[in-house]
Amino acid sequence: VSGTVEGPSLDSVLTDLGKINNSRARASKLFEWLIHPLPAKSFFRETWEKKPALIKRHNAGYYNGLFSTAEFDRILRDDEVHFGVNLDVTSYTHGKRETHNPPGRALPYTVWDFYKRGCSLRLLNPQAFSTVVWSVLSILQEQFNSMAGANVYLTPPGTQGFAPHYDDIEAFVVQLEGKKHWRVYNPRSDDEVLPLVSSPNFSQSEIGEPVMDVVLEAGDLLYFPRGFIHQGDCLPDAHSLHITISSYQRNSWGDLLQKLFPAALEMALEEDVEFRKGLPLDYLTYMGVQNSDKEDPRRTQFTARLLGLMRKVADYAPVDAAVDQKARDFLHDCLPPALTPEEKASSVQGAPARWDRGAAQGTALKMKGHTKIRLIRDGIARLCSNGDEVVLCHIADNSRVYHKEEPKSFEISDEQTEAMEFLIRSYPKFVSVESLPCDTFEDKMSLAMILFERGLVHTSEPFRPS
Amino acid sequence: VSGTVEGPSLDSVLTDLGKINNSRARASKLFEWLIHPLPAKSFFRETWEKKPALIKRHNAGYYNGLFSTAEFDRILRDDEVHFGVNLDVTSYTHGKRETHNPPGRALPYTVWDFYKRGCSLRLLNPQAFSTVVWSVLSILQEQFNSMAGANVYLTPPGTQGFAPHYDDIEAFVVQLEGKKHWRVYNPRSDDEVLPLVSSPNFSQSEIGEPVMDVVLEAGDLLYFPRGFIHQGDCLPDAHSLHITISSYQRNSWGDLLQKLFPAALEMALEEDVEFRKGLPLDYLTYMGVQNSDKEDPRRTQFTARLLGLMRKVADYAPVDAAVDQKARDFLHDCLPPALTPEEKASSVQGAPARWDRGAAQGTALKMKGHTKIRLIRDGIARLCSNGDEVVLCHIADNSRVYHKEEPKSFEISDEQTEAMEFLIRSYPKFVSVESLPCDTFEDKMSLAMILFERGLVHTSEPFRPS
Amino acid sequence: VSGTVEGPSLDSVLTDLGKINNSRARASKLFEWLIHPLPAKSFFRETWEKKPALIKRHNAGYYNGLFSTAEFDRILRDDEVHFGVNLDVTSYTHGKRETHNPPGRALPYTVWDFYKRGCSLRLLNPQAFSTVVWSVLSILQEQFNSMAGANVYLTPPGTQGFAPHYDDIEAFVVQLEGKKHWRVYNPRSDDEVLPLVSSPNFSQSEIGEPVMDVVLEAGDLLYFPRGFIHQGDCLPDAHSLHITISSYQRNSWGDLLQKLFPAALEMALEEDVEFRKGLPLDYLTYMGVQNSDKEDPRRTQFTARLLGLMRKVADYAPVDAAVDQKARDFLHDCLPPALTPEEKASSVQGAPARWDRGAAQGTALKMKGHTKIRLIRDGIARLCSNGDEVVLCHIADNSRVYHKEEPKSFEISDEQTEAMEFLIRSYPKFVSVESLPCDTFEDKMSLAMILFERGLVHTSEPFRPS
Amino acid sequence: VSGTVEGPSLDSVLTDLGKINNSRARASKLFEWLIHPLPAKSFFRETWEKKPALIKRHNAGYYNGLFSTAEFDRILRDDEVHFGVNLDVTSYTHGKRETHNPPGRALPYTVWDFYKRGCSLRLLNPQAFSTVVWSVLSILQEQFNSMAGANVYLTPPGTQGFAPHYDDIEAFVVQLEGKKHWRVYNPRSDDEVLPLVSSPNFSQSEIGEPVMDVVLEAGDLLYFPRGFIHQGDCLPDAHSLHITISSYQRNSWGDLLQKLFPAALEMALEEDVEFRKGLPLDYLTYMGVQNSDKEDPRRTQFTARLLGLMRKVADYAPVDAAVDQKARDFLHDCLPPALTPEEKASSVQGAPARWDRGAAQGTALKMKGHTKIRLIRDGIARLCSNGDEVVLCHIADNSRVYHKEEPKSFEISDEQTEAMEFLIRSYPKFVSVESLPCDTFEDKMSLAMILFERGLVHTSEPFRPS
Repeated sequence: VSGTVEGPSLDSVLTDLGKINNSRARASKLFEWLIHPLPAKSFFRETWEKKPALIKRHNAGYYNGLFSTAEFDRILRDDEVHFGVNLDVTSYTHGKRETHNPPGRALPYTVWDFYKRGCSLRLLNPQAFSTVVWSVLSILQEQFNSMAGANVYLTPPGTQGFAPHYDDIEAFVVQLEGKKHWRVYNPRSDDEVLPLVSSPNFSQSEIGEPVMDVVLEAGDLLYFPRGFIHQGDCLPDAHSLHITISSYQRNSWGDLLQKLFPAALEMALEEDVEFRKGLPLDYLTYMGVQNSDKEDPRRTQFTARLLGLMRKVADYAPVDAAVDQKARDFLHDCLPPALTPEEKASSVQGAPARWDRGAAQGTALKMKGHTKIRLIRDGIARLCSNGDEVVLCHIADNSRVYHKEEPKSFEISDEQTEAMEFLIRSYPKFVSVESLPCDTFEDKMSLAMILFERGLVHTSEPFRPS
Repeated sequence: VSGTVEGPSLDSVLTDLGKINNSRARASKLFEWLIHPLPAKSFFRETWEKKPALIKRHNAGYYNGLFSTAEFDRILRDDEVHFGVNLDVTSYTHGKRETHNPPGRALPYTVWDFYKRGCSLRLLNPQAFSTVVWSVLSILQEQFNSMAGANVYLTPPGTQGFAPHYDDIEAFVVQLEGKKHWRVYNPRSDDEVLPLVSSPNFSQSEIGEPVMDVVLEAGDLLYFPRGFIHQGDCLPDAHSLHITISSYQRNSWGDLLQKLFPAALEMALEEDVEFRKGLPLDYLTYMGVQNSDKEDPRRTQFTARLLGLMRKVADYAPVDAAVDQKARDFLHDCLPPALTPEEKASSVQGAPARWDRGAAQGTALKMKGHTKIRLIRDGIARLCSNGDEVVLCHIADNSRVYHKEEPKSFEISDEQTEAMEFLIRSYPKFVSVESLPCDTFEDKMSLAMILFERGLVHTSEPFRPS
Repeated sequence: VSGTVEGPSLDSVLTDLGKINNSRARASKLFEWLIHPLPAKSFFRETWEKKPALIKRHNAGYYNGLFSTAEFDRILRDDEVHFGVNLDVTSYTHGKRETHNPPGRALPYTVWDFYKRGCSLRLLNPQAFSTVVWSVLSILQEQFNSMAGANVYLTPPGTQGFAPHYDDIEAFVVQLEGKKHWRVYNPRSDDEVLPLVSSPNFSQSEIGEPVMDVVLEAGDLLYFPRGFIHQGDCLPDAHSLHITISSYQRNSWGDLLQKLFPAALEMALEEDVEFRKGLPLDYLTYMGVQNSDKEDPRRTQFTARLLGLMRKVADYAPVDAAVDQKARDFLHDCLPPALTPEEKASSVQGAPARWDRGAAQGTALKMKGHTKIRLIRDGIARLCSNGDEVVLCHIADNSRVYHKEEPKSFEISDEQTEAMEFLIRSYPKFVSVESLPCDTFEDKMSLAMILFERGLVHTSEPFRPS
Repeated sequence: VSGTVEGPSLDSVLTDLGKINNSRARASKLFEWLIHPLPAKSFFRETWEKKPALIKRHNAGYYNGLFSTAEFDRILRDDEVHFGVNLDVTSYTHGKRETHNPPGRALPYTVWDFYKRGCSLRLLNPQAFSTVVWSVLSILQEQFNSMAGANVYLTPPGTQGFAPHYDDIEAFVVQLEGKKHWRVYNPRSDDEVLPLVSSPNFSQSEIGEPVMDVVLEAGDLLYFPRGFIHQGDCLPDAHSLHITISSYQRNSWGDLLQKLFPAALEMALEEDVEFRKGLPLDYLTYMGVQNSDKEDPRRTQFTARLLGLMRKVADYAPVDAAVDQKARDFLHDCLPPALTPEEKASSVQGAPARWDRGAAQGTALKMKGHTKIRLIRDGIARLCSNGDEVVLCHIADNSRVYHKEEPKSFEISDEQTEAMEFLIRSYPKFVSVESLPCDTFEDKMSLAMILFERGLVHTSEPFRPS
């Protein structure tokens, strides 16, 4: 990809996104902007999880507004950034990777002193400090259906902060300021293709020749799948600021199978007596590594029956329930939604209830039967099986700090489950409270009110004092 | 089965068993005696895990020597039996099941007072107190390749001690003294055939009509598979003493699969990139219980791929390693071997080392190259995989008290693994130390000595002072 | 106390406080304002821990700026307030005290609805949300040398939110808006004078007659010691907002003795063989409750020797070390200092290091030998014994959320301990770095720099780019 | 002490002891035998906890029957002795102390091989394996009112098994076979007189010159207090077997004070408001190590008040309750009583209840009003305060294995407490059940029966079938 790439600024992107009616469409749109001019469809078909991609835009301002070193400086000044928790000070010189975190709070004076002395700075979890990063990631998580995370890296001219290594996530390196020299290397072997865990630091001699050797400039994007080794260093004439947006950590078919297998076997044990039958009396005399060299027809027969049962477990696999286990983990990982002004105005967050002239005002406002509601985001909540019951899991009360809050869910009464499903499927359409498929008006209203109060639905018109 | 059944007494059975060269043959022989005159082969084919069986022997002395109420009394007197730990005092009257254990030690005075007042007594784990029961069970565990356990029940005339229920083990009810009226009922439904856990107490109205209604007399045997409901009560004219020998608790194909699945999936994840590939971007929008009613071709496709992978995991299943996990659990459950006098005389337990006339004597005795050794029992030890290494797991230091000792194992050096396998496979043949396939004589001797000192092998001739 | 009481507003109070050179003087001044026109000296002599006091000011604006319901509303809107964690919804009607917290985040819509329906609102730990409350409490903790905490209570007209009870803290009830009818009762017995734990809720019949029955109006103050039962209810014509400032929780002589005794006994055991001598052979035959009625001269003698040793332990009491244990607990409880603009400008927090025009600026600024420094607050740090070493404990990195951070401390090298003590004692005077009593200039500079970087000292002149 | 010392053999000692009516008198007698011909009175006055003592008896058979290497050999053969748990194999050569325990069970073959190769053997807790040692220690614990423990040491000729060290117990080294050269050294400093913890191994250069240098021969006794360094080595011509009987581990005045202080302070806090009063507002500004050099009258005043309160705590000290805490620990440490045949015959352990001719016999025997009972041992049980209630703590169900059983106790009803006290104080007199001071005959009988059934009392006449 080459040639100057024009594109809308993040500001106008976010404003435009706010007008999109459907949060999943919004997520696709934002992702398209991220990888523009690559079409998402072909990206996911040809590149994603397969090979690195570089987008040179010759447009230093393309990502303006996403993050900046000035913002970094502001965060150090205004927020409680702690070394080792939110910020790492690192260096990689003469093949040696070091971390220099002192204890305690990271204040500009100390941080910039480290930087001056050639150390790289890695800001962890910038979404907790930057509203824009939070907004972007909370939208992207609906694109990936897997947690969208980020780290910010600031590197002084002429230095390198990290040793070559590979990660366990799909990485989008967004160059924000300055430039950086990147070298990307193929996975070293089939075993390291799409790995589940990150690598240790490698020495230069372990990684072979780069398949990509480029200079990333402000406005450029570099993507590489998990397992691709990479290292970046600053040229002598410019610092570098980039944010790496990541996703798909432990989001493989195998990760889903880890949820599925125990549940499937439990079902098989309950429902099929073949699984409960006793093992052959003498199996220990011909099975086990001690007997693995033996030629014994009983070995063949035993193995065949065991593997037959193993395959048969698939017949009992509660696939949707296992997906729900995975979904619940994802919902716990999620950022809470960063609401647009319009969303706020039509939701509990913007409800006109307030203290005014010595009294609580605006609480008289209630829903009516003809009030129209919908989920505030498609991904805000999900009906999940949880053992024998079905609960509504949601992300409205999640924290911007990873896993600071416990997973949130509540039970939906049997009388309201169908209405809840109706609401979920109606998205992005608004539906009137009275149209909810409950037996009684009370059930409709109480479901609508609880969802409204917990921040899960908003109304078609802003709540306004009558 | 009816008519008077003659058979050897336990004493002569055990003496005869001691002459059998192979501990597995010994185990079969003992089991045959237990179910005599049923042939073991047809028993395992037609009855085991399938239906109850009754053996009426009209030979009150058939099981003489196995256990008696006099032995029970001796145990109370001589050993530290504690209520609630080793002994339960129970009653079942007017449909109500109660436990009456006081705190502290169970002494004859208190125990017999309970009995006089109509309570049943259940002695748990009698193998810890009775050498004969220990001997019998430690032999039978080689027949079952699954822990052989036992409880003893003493019931006063005209009473019942337990409510109807089913257990999670194969049960052999051995009537030792007096008689007892037994009713056995089919499993109540397919779900309760060969169950994995025991039932709660049932009321009489929940269990239907008995399929077997018999009076067991001394010398008789009653077998029923797990899942068959049963209750026994004493006739007014006689007390009852029986021992229930049990096995095959959690020893089903499904229990092996619980070991196999995680290991197999781990292998698949390591070796096959298909398992490491990311889930489809949008799978949460059409999978999960929330979407389970949806007609969506993507659901079919997703499920097919997932179940395909699930079945494919079987291709990576480390069957022998999983069997070894199961085997290690079994070895932990095992009783230590109860050695015959001949076995003792030719093993470390009977080595003539002793304190005599103010000095240690008999330690000069060492193995020679031509000394012949073999495992002291086929089931005494086993080479098991343990992650990446192979260890020798053994039961020589197990306790007669269940799980009082940790699982025991030690590493075998690479130089000695082949010799260890040779020894295991040579059983029941004795082989000379010099014939062990090691490179050096030192390796042969050190392997032989360590196995001898840990009580795992014995010699063809007793160790005698030269 | 009666008659209109004029006084400076909180704004001008805080501005004036900022000009006071010594943080302890500042704390006294602020406390004087709190209880104005009562003189602190007589208050502490005659009232504190002894009896309730009422200050009627007839000056509704006296506490303006400290907190307001508008601020409450803002906090609900802007901050992450969670029911049950930061906010309680309560009621007390017909003698029944209830809590109505739903799960999840507390948003204005829900909160004001509860209020409208007659519930009281208690905002816990307002210092985490309000900068002014933080400032006030962080100053007052230097007055009390014990944690200064606060709760805010908002009560609808004509309602009561809490049952009568007593607390375990000294309470300053600061009426901010509206008015509230308060009844205060003497401790019910000597045992409940200055209690260590709060009471359960009392019924009206358990508490006798009030010793104080007043209406608190905005600008008024009500003080009562721990152990004094109290209840407040709103008149039909006005809501009430008050903040209760509290201190001296578990700050009694006995609490210090709980630190002192184990340490003292350990010292006595080490240093005095009398404590290590064996007990009399037969003491169990005449001591113990079983023998407590016995007339036995050995009892007298034993008790005398034991109590003699008990008293003698005082000779080994490491009083200062025990005070340090207490001090370390206090420092952990402390709020971090809320710096004035001047303090910020002359400390690391305001150091001109910043990101500007693509580079880190202002880090070249370093201390010189003639730079003058002092602790930024008298109470910011403390040299404490910790076993055998001496560490510098400090509160600079504490969180506004109670105990969110671990206690912070670091070691001071032997070469720098004297200089550290010098600095501590010099407060509030500034001293030059070169005047620190260290052997080398490097030691002086490194001590000064580490204290500066951790936010413990500031300079006499703002750090400015040269 | 020198010259041939004649004395009764252990057998006749134990037989004679059985005739002594009072278990405490029995304990004194046995102790006198242990240290014969030293008089106990002068021993405890002049030697105990003060200095080593040697008793040369020139009577190799004096301790015959207590323990022997033959018994050691039998234990290895018959009991489950495990290396590292019950047996240590050690050596001390060229100043280097080593432990050689292999894993697993200690069988004679392996153990005697170690011995032959010059290793020392230490049998831990021999009371669990030897009935005589159990009898002796269970009697002696009533002498010491502190756990009586033991280790057995077997050392080959010409070797030493342990480095010089001191222990935390009073040690009685009883030479059983052969002879051993002992050197005993004074505590190295006042701090190491009567220490609370054992020392590490010392080098020869650290311990100075011995104050005692003797050869202990069979029948001899060596006593030394805790803190006295000691080492023993075998002469080339004889092995050595000795048992070290120990007591008074953590049984000092200070150990009792550790129970007393927290209880006393809690009482003081409850009862005396002086302890609940707040600390001075400004105490942190002049107290603490930071201020320890300051001349400040407030320091003097503060310290005086604090130490005054510290001493005043003694006024609230619940001495008997603290002694009971200590007593409860001791009872948990105790061995169960080893009953004489007569004691057995008249207690629940020997009650004639038994299984005979197909039925439980002898349970009809019950107490009558005129049956006479007493505690089976003075030290078998104790009424102890436990918080607000009084419980009967006892040792009847303790195990011969240290702390294998939890502490045992049960509640005595209010109606029976006085009777329980009466029983305790009546010891060693028998009293009739009807004479117990309870209101009703039922209460008398139920108390007598529960004590009888739990093995705490016995009757004046054996229970015999009427």
